[in-house]
Amino acid sequence: MSRERFFNKKYEYLTLAQAIEITGATPYGEVDLQARIYDVATLEKASSQQISFFHSGSYFEKFLATKAGFCLIEEKNADRSPAGINILLHKNPYFAYAKIAASFYEEKPHEYSESLIDSSAKIGDGTKIAPNAFVGKNVQIGKNCIIGPSASIMQGSIIGDNCIINANATIAFSIIGNNCIIYAGARIGQDGFGFAHQSGINHKIIQIGIVEIGDDVEVGANCCIDRGAIENTIIMDGTKLDNLNQIGHNVSIGKGSVLAGCSAIAGSTKIGNFVQVGGKSSVGGHISIGDGVKIAGMSGVMRDIEPMQIVAGIPSMPIKQWHRLNIALANMIKKKGV
Amino acid sequence: MSRERFFNKKYEYLTLAQAIEITGATPYGEVDLQARIYDVATLEKASSQQISFFHSGSYFEKFLATKAGFCLIEEKNADRSPAGINILLHKNPYFAYAKIAASFYEEKPHEYSESLIDSSAKIGDGTKIAPNAFVGKNVQIGKNCIIGPSASIMQGSIIGDNCIINANATIAFSIIGNNCIIYAGARIGQDGFGFAHQSGINHKIIQIGIVEIGDDVEVGANCCIDRGAIENTIIMDGTKLDNLNQIGHNVSIGKGSVLAGCSAIAGSTKIGNFVQVGGKSSVGGHISIGDGVKIAGMSGVMRDIEPMQIVAGIPSMPIKQWHRLNIALANMIKKKGV
Amino acid sequence: MSRERFFNKKYEYLTLAQAIEITGATPYGEVDLQARIYDVATLEKASSQQISFFHSGSYFEKFLATKAGFCLIEEKNADRSPAGINILLHKNPYFAYAKIAASFYEEKPHEYSESLIDSSAKIGDGTKIAPNAFVGKNVQIGKNCIIGPSASIMQGSIIGDNCIINANATIAFSIIGNNCIIYAGARIGQDGFGFAHQSGINHKIIQIGIVEIGDDVEVGANCCIDRGAIENTIIMDGTKLDNLNQIGHNVSIGKGSVLAGCSAIAGSTKIGNFVQVGGKSSVGGHISIGDGVKIAGMSGVMRDIEPMQIVAGIPSMPIKQWHRLNIALANMIKKKGV
Repeated sequence: MSRERFFNKKYEYLTLAQAIEITGATPYGEVDLQARIYDVATLEKASSQQISFFHSGSYFEKFLATKAGFCLIEEKNADRSPAGINILLHKNPYFAYAKIAASFYEEKPHEYSESLIDSSAKIGDGTKIAPNAFVGKNVQIGKNCIIGPSASIMQGSIIGDNCIINANATIAFSIIGNNCIIYAGARIGQDGFGFAHQSGINHKIIQIGIVEIGDDVEVGANCCIDRGAIENTIIMDGTKLDNLNQIGHNVSIGKGSVLAGCSAIAGSTKIGNFVQVGGKSSVGGHISIGDGVKIAGMSGVMRDIEPMQIVAGIPSMPIKQWHRLNIALANMIKKKGV
Repeated sequence: MSRERFFNKKYEYLTLAQAIEITGATPYGEVDLQARIYDVATLEKASSQQISFFHSGSYFEKFLATKAGFCLIEEKNADRSPAGINILLHKNPYFAYAKIAASFYEEKPHEYSESLIDSSAKIGDGTKIAPNAFVGKNVQIGKNCIIGPSASIMQGSIIGDNCIINANATIAFSIIGNNCIIYAGARIGQDGFGFAHQSGINHKIIQIGIVEIGDDVEVGANCCIDRGAIENTIIMDGTKLDNLNQIGHNVSIGKGSVLAGCSAIAGSTKIGNFVQVGGKSSVGGHISIGDGVKIAGMSGVMRDIEPMQIVAGIPSMPIKQWHRLNIALANMIKKKGV
Repeated sequence: MSRERFFNKKYEYLTLAQAIEITGATPYGEVDLQARIYDVATLEKASSQQISFFHSGSYFEKFLATKAGFCLIEEKNADRSPAGINILLHKNPYFAYAKIAASFYEEKPHEYSESLIDSSAKIGDGTKIAPNAFVGKNVQIGKNCIIGPSASIMQGSIIGDNCIINANATIAFSIIGNNCIIYAGARIGQDGFGFAHQSGINHKIIQIGIVEIGDDVEVGANCCIDRGAIENTIIMDGTKLDNLNQIGHNVSIGKGSVLAGCSAIAGSTKIGNFVQVGGKSSVGGHISIGDGVKIAGMSGVMRDIEPMQIVAGIPSMPIKQWHRLNIALANMIKKKGV
């Protein structure tokens, strides 16, 4: 499983008693303190041996449907809990989750040898590597790739066949398919911007997802793609990102989508297949954009969009409404003669 | 000619018969299948021995005036063709053009020696190069330049005298004048974001223009300047770009212009002399901005602007109108008391 | 004092006569031509032995209160000058200041040895440096830091203990505290975007401030933080910047603030403690944002904001007004039925 390539798991499991000690949480109702928690997971993906957390109203349906065996929640939500879960009460479930995640996982330590290409790296036939590129521990690079000068392929990353990683790009915590082009200065796989605010301090939350990139993907110059917080950040086959795009943690972008320059997709947003995003547009976090949607340039999307819609404006609206709005505003200042 | 520095031309010419075979286009009217096509070019620049394409209504006037000997167009435009051109009909003229361009040209292959400074590079007197900078094949660097650590000067690029290329910058497919400062992490010369969409796939279009930068130009940290698709991307003397600007392919920016941080100029837009672009502003593609125009910060320009105008807003309007609009909107929510 | 780490001071002092010769300014009233000017400074910080400049109405109060011994101003402001200052009249005080500053200061010249880690650099115990990282002259790096591949730590910079400087980042003209994480491709310390426009030319103004970063600060991937023009650019303890942020020269950001991705703070703006800036937001220059302010994503702030306010929109307004505005606009296009 990909997580083990990049992270050390420090414990096979924590007992519920240990989880309580680590977090300072309070068990709700009767619990078995010797029950074993084997991992952290999202509400959607957690199994009966895993712990999740519920901290935001927008995830209430997922909370009701979760198969997690353990869940950190606020006290106010206790009586809305589905049955059969070991509930742990905490004022700040996200912060408590962060403590559990950091107990389970740590990034594999950075280790540099004197060699630019670590002896453990596997490099496919026909791959050309510039003389000052860095290829870290346990990296795998396929056949017929080109790795540009000062490119940094950090430990554990996997790159498929026929890829071009241009000069000065950085790849970390990533698994990249075939025939991809990563442009100069792109930053792929740094940990997402995840903090739990507690007592006036922004506590870093270990980001244990990676970046998964399909085949035939292009990532433009100086783009940034953060790795996932728990699940992975995903860019599917054939999707093309222009320069200076920002892709937050846990974002998923479907197949054949095209994002023009300077676009930003905030964390946990899902973008469908064959979506077109105009330049300088933004999509807020935790939003779902359907297949075939077109977002006009310079727009700001703040809510879900159904498939095949065309939207524009900040906040975005159907493009016909936006045209009407612009005409109405132009008329308004004409009439007013202010 | 600059194109030959960076690209191999694989054929001196293609016959019209070959072009038809490569593209699957249908000749319109009577044509000489043995006629020779020596190159691809834009509608504006093409000569009688060159092939161009017409695929968007906004280029109709250029289509009527073209001196191209050969042109790829959609069938619906056939009877509006000017006389004296060999017309080739195709459902997707841009995609057909892409096939012809890729038949003529290929990027010179990346070749890395063991040396960081290729033996074929010419370096002027007094130029200082950091110990881990990369200087590729056939690069020319003038006198008294400074090339920072991990800067990557890719094959064929030319840099004038007294230039500073700061750390971790990337220069490719570029010809840069004298007294320029390229800041850390700037990316100059990657291929523009050019795709022809055909049968659900985004087909890459070979970008055979370069980046031409005049004298006394500054390019801010982490800016991106794409090279041209057919013609060159041009930044003229004395123009200054702040950090994180995005300059699309085929853009031309005149002399003495100033673009504040995080601005984006989409592809094929022409910006005049002494233009001021405020921070976080965007200018859409295929737009013309006159000399002396001032664009307020955070604006979005979606149409041509006459010289000396001052504009603001998204979409942009004369700044006085924008002030009136803001007052009117403020009054509206006061009155409504919603 | 930090300025001497990075700049050479060429003269201990200039006489007023020399300053007049350098700038072409005209003394106003009676002055002592042999009076000594020991340095340049802002109106706020200048002492009786230092020269400042007043060029913009928004600084009028600071001009009235200045303790500067010497000040460059436009003739139209001469009779509003406070008493006891040697006043120099110039059509373009900012340009005249630039000439004085450039007479006093120059950046220490770039010097590269053959070694990637300069022999004068001091590296703390337990610090790991990637084999192709660059560490310049007189750099100081604390204990237990990690310096990634192709990171460039330019001459004179100081980095505290337990910092991570990720791959391909650039640090120059900077003093960084403990426990900081600088992400891949961040650019810290390049000179700000400062030009004095004179006779159709954008004259570069030497930027003699540095970047000061406190403890526990994070700077996201491909962020840019310019160094100060005269005073320093400052990021205080515990502040976190997401990816692709642009921080202009002389900006000050307080403690515990959080800026989401693609935000831009223009020059000389002051941001308080525990401020939250949403993604893709912009704050104009010379603005003051109070403690605890929240700026919604995709907003554009164009004026000062009192502490604890929540704002949204372009231009920004209290978020409740912005919601009302959006409802009113939606109603307007419904009613109009345009």
